[in-house]
This record gives sequence, C-alpha cells and structure tokens, in this order.
Amino acid sequence: MRTRSLTLAVVLFAMAVSGCRKHRGHAGAPKDVTPSVATDLRDRARKTSRAFAILRSLTDEVGPRMSGTPGDARAVDWALAKMKSLGLVNVRAERVMVPHWERGEGSGSIVAPVQQSLILTALGGSVGTPEGGLEAEVLAVPSLQALEDLPADKVRGKIVFFDKPMARTRDGSGYGKAVDVRGKGAIAASKKGAIAVLIRSVGTGPARLPHTGALRYVDDVPKIPAAALALPDADLLRRTLERGPARVKLNLGCKQLDDAPSANVVGEVTGSETPDELVLLGAHLDSWDLGTGAVDDGAGVAAVLEAARLISELPRRPRRTVRVVLFANEEAGLRGAIEYAKVHKDELPKHTMALEIDLGAGRVYGVHYLAGPSSGPGFQAIAAPLRVLGVAPPIASEHHGADLWPLRAAGVPLVDLAQDATKYFDLHHTADDTLDKVDPGDLDHVVAATTAFAFGAADTTADFGRIPEDKRK
Amino acid sequence: MRTRSLTLAVVLFAMAVSGCRKHRGHAGAPKDVTPSVATDLRDRARKTSRAFAILRSLTDEVGPRMSGTPGDARAVDWALAKMKSLGLVNVRAERVMVPHWERGEGSGSIVAPVQQSLILTALGGSVGTPEGGLEAEVLAVPSLQALEDLPADKVRGKIVFFDKPMARTRDGSGYGKAVDVRGKGAIAASKKGAIAVLIRSVGTGPARLPHTGALRYVDDVPKIPAAALALPDADLLRRTLERGPARVKLNLGCKQLDDAPSANVVGEVTGSETPDELVLLGAHLDSWDLGTGAVDDGAGVAAVLEAARLISELPRRPRRTVRVVLFANEEAGLRGAIEYAKVHKDELPKHTMALEIDLGAGRVYGVHYLAGPSSGPGFQAIAAPLRVLGVAPPIASEHHGADLWPLRAAGVPLVDLAQDATKYFDLHHTADDTLDKVDPGDLDHVVAATTAFAFGAADTTADFGRIPEDKRK
Repeated sequence: MRTRSLTLAVVLFAMAVSGCRKHRGHAGAPKDVTPSVATDLRDRARKTSRAFAILRSLTDEVGPRMSGTPGDARAVDWALAKMKSLGLVNVRAERVMVPHWERGEGSGSIVAPVQQSLILTALGGSVGTPEGGLEAEVLAVPSLQALEDLPADKVRGKIVFFDKPMARTRDGSGYGKAVDVRGKGAIAASKKGAIAVLIRSVGTGPARLPHTGALRYVDDVPKIPAAALALPDADLLRRTLERGPARVKLNLGCKQLDDAPSANVVGEVTGSETPDELVLLGAHLDSWDLGTGAVDDGAGVAAVLEAARLISELPRRPRRTVRVVLFANEEAGLRGAIEYAKVHKDELPKHTMALEIDLGAGRVYGVHYLAGPSSGPGFQAIAAPLRVLGVAPPIASEHHGADLWPLRAAGVPLVDLAQDATKYFDLHHTADDTLDKVDPGDLDHVVAATTAFAFGAADTTADFGRIPEDKRK
Repeated sequence: MRTRSLTLAVVLFAMAVSGCRKHRGHAGAPKDVTPSVATDLRDRARKTSRAFAILRSLTDEVGPRMSGTPGDARAVDWALAKMKSLGLVNVRAERVMVPHWERGEGSGSIVAPVQQSLILTALGGSVGTPEGGLEAEVLAVPSLQALEDLPADKVRGKIVFFDKPMARTRDGSGYGKAVDVRGKGAIAASKKGAIAVLIRSVGTGPARLPHTGALRYVDDVPKIPAAALALPDADLLRRTLERGPARVKLNLGCKQLDDAPSANVVGEVTGSETPDELVLLGAHLDSWDLGTGAVDDGAGVAAVLEAARLISELPRRPRRTVRVVLFANEEAGLRGAIEYAKVHKDELPKHTMALEIDLGAGRVYGVHYLAGPSSGPGFQAIAAPLRVLGVAPPIASEHHGADLWPLRAAGVPLVDLAQDATKYFDLHHTADDTLDKVDPGDLDHVVAATTAFAFGAADTTADFGRIPEDKRK
C-alpha cells in the first residue's frame, strides 16, 4: 500500500493493510453540479486569495503551537477570532485534553575517537537523559530488521543509531518507508538493552537542522531517550564509525507533563438546502515547537479557512454545510481527531465527505478518494474545474490526512488533494518550517483547488456512499 | 572598487581604496613556460585528485578549529602530519599568538508584542550580555548611514537591528556591500547609546542558521554585544516591527580570553633551479566554530595541499620553490598573515607570486592579478592551460584573498583564481559549513586550476615585477 503516512499513527495503521485495491465509480454522474460557480470560485481564489495573510497572521502572531503549550492555547484563541472575522458561523472551540511534553535543552557530541559536536533534537515524547547525560558506544543499524537480527549482547548498553535515509519523491512516499525507525526505534532498541537511540532525521534537506516527530513507547518496555540527528551530523557519525568505534554523549532535558486542555476549533458555512449534510474541510492547528509551523500545517489552516471564506461570500451558498475543523494535537497523538469522531458520532452519517490539507503549500496534482463503490462519477464531476490547475482526474486511493483516520473507521468518504511533496520533507518538523518557505503563488493554487472542490462537494446532491467495511481499518 | 572582501579586514582596507584601475601587461611573453607539463598536471589533478579525502580528514578528524581553541591546536598538528605524508619538505609550524574568544550559549526572543524565539548567534569577538541577559525595544535601520542620520535620543537604550540584505552574485560582491554593518555596527550603535546590536545575517541562504563573523570594537566606545539573526528570524523581526513596537530579550555568554598560541603551518616543494624564488600557495587553517569549516576554508586547504603534492611528484620539479602556507587566524584578525609577513620580511622580495584559495570549492572562472605593469604576458602564458577548464584569460584586478593583504603592502604580486561564489554565502560562517556541502567534482576542478597555474608560476622565468606603490595600501 502506498500511503502519505504523515504521522506515526498513519504508518502503524498502514502496516495492517495489504494491497491497494482501487474503486472506480460506475454509476451515472449526478446532473446537478454547478461547475460554472466552482470555476468562478477557483479563478477568484487565484486572484484574490487572502490565505497568505492568514498564514502570516498565524505564524507571526502565534508562532509555534505544540500541543499543550501556551502557544497552543493562543492558537485556539486566534482560530476562533479568525473564523469569526472571516464570516464563518457556529464558531466554537470543542475542548480536547492533549499531551503536554517539554523538549528542554538538548545537546550531543562524539567524544571518541575525536570530539565533535552533533546537532540533534529530541524526538517528540522522548524521556530525558539521566542528570548529567549519558555516554556510550554507538551501534549503527540501517533498519529495524537489522537490529532485530542482532543478538542482544551486541546491543546491550549501547546507543543504537538508526541510519536509514529517506528518498525524495513527489508523492512523499519516501517518508512512510523511512519513518518506522522514528516511531518504533526506541521500543526495539530498548528491548535489546540499548540505553538510547539516535536516528538519521526522517527528512530530505541538506541543512544542518534536525527533524523532530513523535515516537512511541509501550508500557512493558523501559523508556529510553531518543533524538534525531541533522543529516550532515548523521553523515559525520556514519563516517566516523567507518573508521572504527565511536562514543557519543547525549543530554536531553525532556519532560512529559500532565495532559493540558486544548481544542478542535470548528466553524461553518451553513448549507442553503440540506444544512444537516456536511462537507468537512480539515487541517491541524497544532505544530511542532522548533519552527513556526508555516508549512505544517499553517498552510493547510490558511487554505481551508480561505476556502470557507470564499464560499461564504457567494450570493448563493451551496446546498450542504461546509464545516471547517482545525484539529488539536495531530502531531503527537491525534487526540483532536479521535475526540471529534467521538463527540460527533451521531452526526457522522451526515458527513458526506471529509478532506484534510496537511502537506504544506505543495501544488495539487491529483485527487484521491476513498468512498462508496459507486462514487467515481460524482468525484469526476466535482473535480472537473481543477483540470486547468494541472490536476489529474480523481482516482480511488487510500491516501488521506492523518486526522481523518477516525472518520475512515466510521466509513465517512475521504478525499485527498494530492500535493507535490518534493520539497516538503526538507522542512518538515524542523526549525526551518517558517513563513518564508511558503510560496504565496503555490498556496493560492492550493486554495483554488480546495475551494472549487469543496464547493462542488457541498453543492452536489451526489451520494458518495460509505467506505466499504473492509477498508475502514 | 570591487572586492571579494572575505573578512572585515578586507572591507576596512577596501574602503580606503578608490577606483579600479586595471594593469594590462605589454611586455613580450616569456619563452620558457612548459605548458605540456602544466596541461598534464591539470588533467592528472582531475583524474586522481585526493583533495576530497584530505578535506574529509580535516573536517572529520579535526572539525571546527576557531583560533585559540583546542581544535585550532589539533588542526596545526594535523597540518604538519598531512604535509609530511603528502611529501612536502621543510615542514614547520611558525608560532603565532592569536585571539581566543568563546562563544558560550546564546539565545534571544521577541517578548512583545508576542513571544517568539529568535535563532541567532553572537558575532565573533562580541562581549557577552550582562548576567540574566538584556531586554529593550528594537530600532530597525537599513544601513550604517541611516543610523548615522538619526538623533541619539531615538537610539539611546535600544537594541539596534541592522536589516541590510545581501545580494547573491557569482563574484561574491554582494558580501562586501552588506558586511559593513557586521564589522562596524556595534561601534556605530554604541556611539549613539544603543545597548546591543542585532544584524540580519550577512548571507544568502534560506536555512534558519545564523552567520557569524568578526566584529570590531574601538577603545574609546563602550563595547556592546552583537548577534546575527538567521534570515527567517530577521524577516520575522522586520514583519513584527511593521505591526508596531517590539521588544527583544538577548542573552549571550561570550568571553574574550587571553591570546593563545597557534601557528602558520608551512611546507614546500623545493625548486629545481632557483629554490630561493618562491611561489606562495595559501589557504587558512582556522575556521569558525559553528560548522566544520569544510568550505571556509577546508576546501582551500585541501586544494593547495593537493596541488603541492601533485607538483612534488613530477619527475622534474619546477624551477622555483612552491611554498604552501596555511595561515592562522584569518577569521578574526589576520594574525597569521601579519606574522608571516613580519617573520619573512627579508624573504618577501623573493616571493615572485602569492595566491590564496578561500572561496570554497566554487569552480574557477577567471584569473585576477595585481602585479607589476609588465606582467600581463607572463600571466597569459601560465594561465593558458586553464582555458579548457572554462577559465577566462587573466585580467588585472584588485581581488585577492584576505591573508595576502600584508604581502600586498610589501609589493608581492598577487593572484586570485576567481571562483563561483553563487552558493558560497548560503553556508559561509554557519553551522551548515560541513563536508556534505562540498561537491568533489567542483573541488577537483579547483585543484586542477590551482595545480596547473601554480606549476606555471613556479616553472616560468618570467618576472611579475612588484605591485606599484600606489596599489600597495
């Protein structure tokens, strides 16, 4: 299965899936789509989008907003105010308790055979090192399997270094293939008696900035600290190990605090005919702490807010309600997404479609859908106005944003506007995730595609069915 | 005057100069150049260069080597051993006392109107902030002149933010135009009563890594701390100031320690006919502390060492002696270069030419010379084998490496192999100055040009004269 796999959760879910079966629609196309309005919206979005200004406001006035932190709380206030000012209605914060983790100071160095600083950062959720840090010989392995194949006495007392590179691809699939060491490396290494984990950052950029991201622990395996090395530092450690044994010192001041309140922030454009039917436009409000979350996922937040604003200003609103959901805590647990599905359980049958924008401002090149078996013609119809943006016709696929997993489990039809991820993983989860990295023209392209598609989805009377049981996970 | 201006010293010297007068040679070409040997050397360099291995050894086994630090001492030992192993003779360390400055920890943040971290680093030589840091309102100015034009009561008690961007150019000339705020900003701001200085990093890269570099103080103006913001952080501060007043907190743990011993490391390939006549091939051994000094100036060190090795292995050595000098403390005071000129004062009339490689591994596209008025044909002849490398014919120019200033003052003919600096200032003086940023093919190109040119310079009997008095500074 190919998957965008934006979070550990996605990867873990994905592993349970086998094969990629495509559903191509075969029922007749609906007759009531209003392509001229969608086309006008698309062109208006490209000319008058305010998405970059929204993104600037979020990144400059709120900045980093890791779940549970004061920045997260400021982001919730910002989102409530911004939705209201953009003309959305039924604006509210739906409370969610989220993990609250503190990175603290982190440092590392090779101490033998020569002293060299290493630029690294803790993986999200890592425990800290003991007071004064820890120091041990390093054991490099290229994969979880390679570690698995080693006897425990080769691993015991060492720092395991997962040196697994990520490939650069347009569809971001290199990420899913490399990220397992981040999510599961600490568990696997601890089981063999290692005292800490280093990973080559799961990213593609040459800059000396490490990529953080969530790890997992399980209750019955001792929690050991884990950090990501910037790619040049992973290279240095690899080359040093090629010359002989090496020892590393590691100091991480991480702390897991009590869960803290956050919120999914929700606002709507009420449908004109069947307002109880919903099209969900999602993005996630939280970010990592190192950058200002401009690409992950400020761009998505700006795109869905601007799409809703453009739709809300139409002289005639679409039939169905467009609901914007800015999810809490996508990065470290999907607590917002899980809570949304729980709180809105009774309403999920009325969610006719959900999509999430969470791959920065990469231009849209395709439409992926996971829906009922007769849904193809409906998707073809509402995606038609995207053709002039260079977007290929919709295809059945299991790609989708991470926050949509709980909706998938409930059968809600999912859409993914496939975005160009070629450069996304240069920045992802690093300090370099800042406003200057977002091209306004690219962002407006995403807004145009999102707006036209969302309008079509909300204005059609087509029924996209439900995801078949065997695809719900 | 156009200048490459690689250090503050260069810029300061450069400011005293007006106009760019070119000297084109007019005497007859020497008859004794041996182009076939130079051509063979050039081609051998491209096929068999070991420069990248030398560079890897320096960056991996020594790493950062800021003057006065333990890394600097290790670099001296490394250079002595490497020169010997490469077959150079008369290898020695010529002791130089150098400044010893400690960066310490540094941090900064916008504290009003909103809290945002700023990624910054102290300028080299900066004093630290008072215990607990300092906090003040920020005043942005685009240039030294703009600050000069302000009344002192607008500046007093503030942090002055020099927001002067640097242009990307092939010849690196954008650097010389932007770097004055780094060198002189702290003096200018302190004179008006400012308590600290921030500058937009003098660099061109989009990564969130600040560019350090030396500043100056003068005795009669209070020393205030100064730091460089990464470009995205300078952008954030600028945008924040566009919305209204902003306050910044700054904490720098810098310390100036006692001068420490270092050395110019010297080795030679003895000339076969007139060994007292010297061609000096220079690079600088010190680096800043943030990266491993791969491009600045590990590439230069590797190139001149490899050029000397290739020349030393010829069946017939060139007439003149090739002397490799790896200068101490280029980055923060040119102490090595000044000491070299002092110690070798009596020998300088026998220095027939000097060149320095100090612009990374950017490919050579031209040859600049500053020499006697009849030297043109000699340069044309020895540069001829470089044509197939894409190198333009030599032109008279005042570009040259920073360590050559004291030789210029003594009239020694100078050559600059003009290198493509388009990307150099993305990395310069940042943590990103690491081995992975050097393309081995580019480095070997530089080695080929350096080797062929150096051989020609050492094997000719041409006399390049002396720099005219009015050009010596």
